[in-house]
Amino acid sequence: MTVDLYSLNMEKGLHYEAIVTTLNEDGTPNAAPMGVICKGPDQVVLRLHEGSHTIANVKREKKFHINLSRDPLLFTHSLIGNPPATEFAEEKYGFSLKNAYASFFCEVHHEKKVEKEDAMGDNITIMFHSQVQDIKRNRKEYEPLSRAICGVLEALVNLSRVQRAPAEKKREYTDRLKEISRVVNHVGGPKHKEAMELIQKEFEIRIKG
Amino acid sequence: MTVDLYSLNMEKGLHYEAIVTTLNEDGTPNAAPMGVICKGPDQVVLRLHEGSHTIANVKREKKFHINLSRDPLLFTHSLIGNPPATEFAEEKYGFSLKNAYASFFCEVHHEKKVEKEDAMGDNITIMFHSQVQDIKRNRKEYEPLSRAICGVLEALVNLSRVQRAPAEKKREYTDRLKEISRVVNHVGGPKHKEAMELIQKEFEIRIKG
Repeated sequence: MTVDLYSLNMEKGLHYEAIVTTLNEDGTPNAAPMGVICKGPDQVVLRLHEGSHTIANVKREKKFHINLSRDPLLFTHSLIGNPPATEFAEEKYGFSLKNAYASFFCEVHHEKKVEKEDAMGDNITIMFHSQVQDIKRNRKEYEPLSRAICGVLEALVNLSRVQRAPAEKKREYTDRLKEISRVVNHVGGPKHKEAMELIQKEFEIRIKG
Repeated sequence: MTVDLYSLNMEKGLHYEAIVTTLNEDGTPNAAPMGVICKGPDQVVLRLHEGSHTIANVKREKKFHINLSRDPLLFTHSLIGNPPATEFAEEKYGFSLKNAYASFFCEVHHEKKVEKEDAMGDNITIMFHSQVQDIKRNRKEYEPLSRAICGVLEALVNLSRVQRAPAEKKREYTDRLKEISRVVNHVGGPKHKEAMELIQKEFEIRIKG
């Protein structure tokens, strides 16, 4: 079977929110919500911060599963502790999540360290360029989660309100729009970025009105 | 054909972001991004602010189309001006949007005025309780846009960062979490609300750490 991430409605260059499952040193499964970048029909980049449990597992094993889901509790349990053992499905290598609507197995072929300073201080991330090997679908068609459309929707809500907002609220909307643009330009595709440009232009007109 | 919004992956009680198309007095089409609440398999509530173009049309005609889309530019053009004429499809009554993945025709059977004071001053909204008559699908399966999962994702990102954030950033995350919770509790379902409760509890622990 040909591996084709585009058949999961993923687009090249976009970041998606997913849950990555890795194998701990003692053979138990670990799950964590992570951003994953689609780089081609069978290529992804997993971006991990130095210091996490997940990064130690990926560095050691060079293998992981990406699980696509929209379940808010599955995401939350994956960040706070771990989902219950019954949520994991054993795979040829490691584990996937039983209730994900799709999962795929990835092998790292290339690592790249990125160091930058941000509001949090020094920030070291490793980009794990990986080959997608196998897609398992539990549902036929679905939409992977992207924070890009979330940002556009929030920006539109603020745009529709800015004119009649009091001064303090106007400042808040201005700060939020800056932050939303940063996120959308980081995770979104050309249409999301074009939408944000239109919104920003209109925002500057309406905030004076 | 039975009308069943649940077949569009809508859930009772959840708010979705959609584009409503209405008929202007001169017979031309109008499009605007709006929240719509699913109230049952063939029932929706459209919540409109007094003063908009759309509300005048819905009050006069008692009919509208809801269009489901994930296209950031279609949403943006619908708020800023109107989408190009070529985006509209003529229907038995009025217009739908050609590139929506699904559209449905609604007839208002009941109106309810809600007045409340908020940060913006007096706020009058009308809840248009409506019967869904006809669903047109341009794609088999899809996921309607909800701001609930967006909120949960953003809250999880902030939760994962709060421990190592400087004091100023910590305050910013606290304020955002309050606002995100407000939105998610307004637009989300039981699972989204439960996720936010878990996140809030964990946030209070991590912010001290």
